[in-house]
Amino acid sequence: MNNFDLHNPTRILFGKGRISDLDGQVPADAKVLLLYGGGSAERTGVLAQVRAALGDRKVVEFGGIEPNPRYATALKAVDVIKENDITFLLAVGGGSVIDATKFIAAAAELEGDVWDIFTSWGGAIKSAMPFGTVLTLPATGSEMNPASVITHAEKGAKLPFMSSHCYPVFSILDPELTYTLPPRQIANGVADAFVHIIEQYLTYPVAAAVQDGFAETLMRTLIDLGPKAMETPNDYDTRANVMWTATLALNGLIGAGVPHDWASHMIGHEITALNDTDHARTLAVVLPALMQDQRGPKREKLLQYAANVWNIREGSDDARIDAAIDATRNFFHAMGIDTRLGDYGVGPAEVDRIVAALESHGMVALGETKTITPDVARRILTAAL
Amino acid sequence: MNNFDLHNPTRILFGKGRISDLDGQVPADAKVLLLYGGGSAERTGVLAQVRAALGDRKVVEFGGIEPNPRYATALKAVDVIKENDITFLLAVGGGSVIDATKFIAAAAELEGDVWDIFTSWGGAIKSAMPFGTVLTLPATGSEMNPASVITHAEKGAKLPFMSSHCYPVFSILDPELTYTLPPRQIANGVADAFVHIIEQYLTYPVAAAVQDGFAETLMRTLIDLGPKAMETPNDYDTRANVMWTATLALNGLIGAGVPHDWASHMIGHEITALNDTDHARTLAVVLPALMQDQRGPKREKLLQYAANVWNIREGSDDARIDAAIDATRNFFHAMGIDTRLGDYGVGPAEVDRIVAALESHGMVALGETKTITPDVARRILTAAL
Repeated sequence: MNNFDLHNPTRILFGKGRISDLDGQVPADAKVLLLYGGGSAERTGVLAQVRAALGDRKVVEFGGIEPNPRYATALKAVDVIKENDITFLLAVGGGSVIDATKFIAAAAELEGDVWDIFTSWGGAIKSAMPFGTVLTLPATGSEMNPASVITHAEKGAKLPFMSSHCYPVFSILDPELTYTLPPRQIANGVADAFVHIIEQYLTYPVAAAVQDGFAETLMRTLIDLGPKAMETPNDYDTRANVMWTATLALNGLIGAGVPHDWASHMIGHEITALNDTDHARTLAVVLPALMQDQRGPKREKLLQYAANVWNIREGSDDARIDAAIDATRNFFHAMGIDTRLGDYGVGPAEVDRIVAALESHGMVALGETKTITPDVARRILTAAL
Repeated sequence: MNNFDLHNPTRILFGKGRISDLDGQVPADAKVLLLYGGGSAERTGVLAQVRAALGDRKVVEFGGIEPNPRYATALKAVDVIKENDITFLLAVGGGSVIDATKFIAAAAELEGDVWDIFTSWGGAIKSAMPFGTVLTLPATGSEMNPASVITHAEKGAKLPFMSSHCYPVFSILDPELTYTLPPRQIANGVADAFVHIIEQYLTYPVAAAVQDGFAETLMRTLIDLGPKAMETPNDYDTRANVMWTATLALNGLIGAGVPHDWASHMIGHEITALNDTDHARTLAVVLPALMQDQRGPKREKLLQYAANVWNIREGSDDARIDAAIDATRNFFHAMGIDTRLGDYGVGPAEVDRIVAALESHGMVALGETKTITPDVARRILTAAL
């Protein structure tokens, strides 16, 4: 096991009816900026519940945060904070609203140029406004981690940062709030969480029995309950387990003391940049092809994955690995997610563009051993056609 | 899944050589009280490493904290704090030193009578001094939780409390520090952690797939590595997995959103009070007898335990449960821990004394459904003879 630090100060309030706990979590004298995305939070009644729970506090609202939250939009929220002497931020939504709120919380307190947040990968952040979240979409894990990705439309760039100052003070996770989500969003959320787990698991063994076992539990839970969550949207326990799994998939716990990959994410981002394919669907395309291509370096963990996640224990090593990759594709298919580039209109001609984009962003040594060069990425993408 | 709150602010610094990180964790201007137990921390060189890492800070030392830390001893430490204007506490040791430090941290800041800490079960604590820990014995989980048990010798009582103010600010977990532990202490630590897990798992199902899977991972890890940790004390990865498992066994994670039992602990405490049997060994005696007695109410989870922890999948329901109970006993035996009251000199005549002690402490409705009355406890103890 590798050395690690683990520190996660976010308070989780999980379960039915937890929005009513907002009153105890948001300071009584707070001036609150309530941040949200499109119309769904209003339509589903979540915002009405939140407004009621905030009682007599002064609340200013800032809606319209985009699915890939924009830099320019976030800066407008910073202006609203300064104009209204806001003291607490409350994000109501999924990963996009929460990611935007992290950036806004940091930018509002930054001395100097906010652009430094990105050039320093978050290191420029010395403090951030306190913020809480009410999660409506289980997927990204942003509700219990310090990471964020902001899109700069004019530069055509997705800009990640992380800072220990950007953990939510609290996050409310009420599985019932997810009942009204469109099936496509549930499928994307499950796939996103699944690949978050696998990026921290499918590398090389470091004798981390606990982290491996936890990751396998989370994957089995998603395999078992992901399709079910789409079929029976109002099944509380199914939604509860999916929601809690997505949070634990990327809150630091399973990634502590083990190598990380993240190549599927980096390659996938460039596919989204090319033609706006949903993030999770790019992962479902890249991951199986990457598993196939990296079956040498990832051999031991692929065999462990086959046995412990899919219960594949018969046949030669290669046959078991093949079966596990097929099972992974079939899991995505069961949730209506296609796993070939061609399914998203990406043909051989675009492969070189994607590889060139990776190179232009410095993504030339990806994966847990930094051996996924542009040539390897091209091979993976070609296998994914 | 039941509703839950989860908030654990302790920073974990895990791995080889982490004592050197003390300098970055303890405030530079702190006046430190260094707390420890008997002579082992000195003999093994841990204290020397800690003193070196603290550099030029003013450090006062307070050794001699007992294995079952005493109320009177802890109050002496409070006096030392006040006499020396101490601002930070550093516990070096196992659960006893850390438990004592929690009480000392709270008592030093309490307005009014420190005894209120116990009568209020910790509710009287409104603040506590900041403290860190350097863990030398994986067992109790105290290094990442807010609970403590103090012994009042004159009253013959073990006094528990918990408070959200009593989380360590940080805990250093270096598996190499455990190499020198006597085998008996490793065995006790593994058994204690195992029963911590099972108290939060072996109840009735609430569709908590994640918590169940995590608990099963932790139990399998201890079953696999507990005996090995005794045979090959200097195997880093074995000690690392045991250490991390013991912490996760009782840090709130696997207990979130599920019922808890704790009857084995409550009954076991009275055996320790009777004849000073090691805490972990009392658990190894009570647990198998309790499983046997409660095979009706715990049926579903016992079958899940047999299948997922012991891979027992053949035979009738009762045969699988019997096999799982036998396997549990054999696990304790493999670490040199006896599992019958008679092995510890407790005969039929003492059963009534233990039951009377439970009654006198108000422990008359134990377990996840509060159905373990004194009569049931007597039945369990008789079966454990």
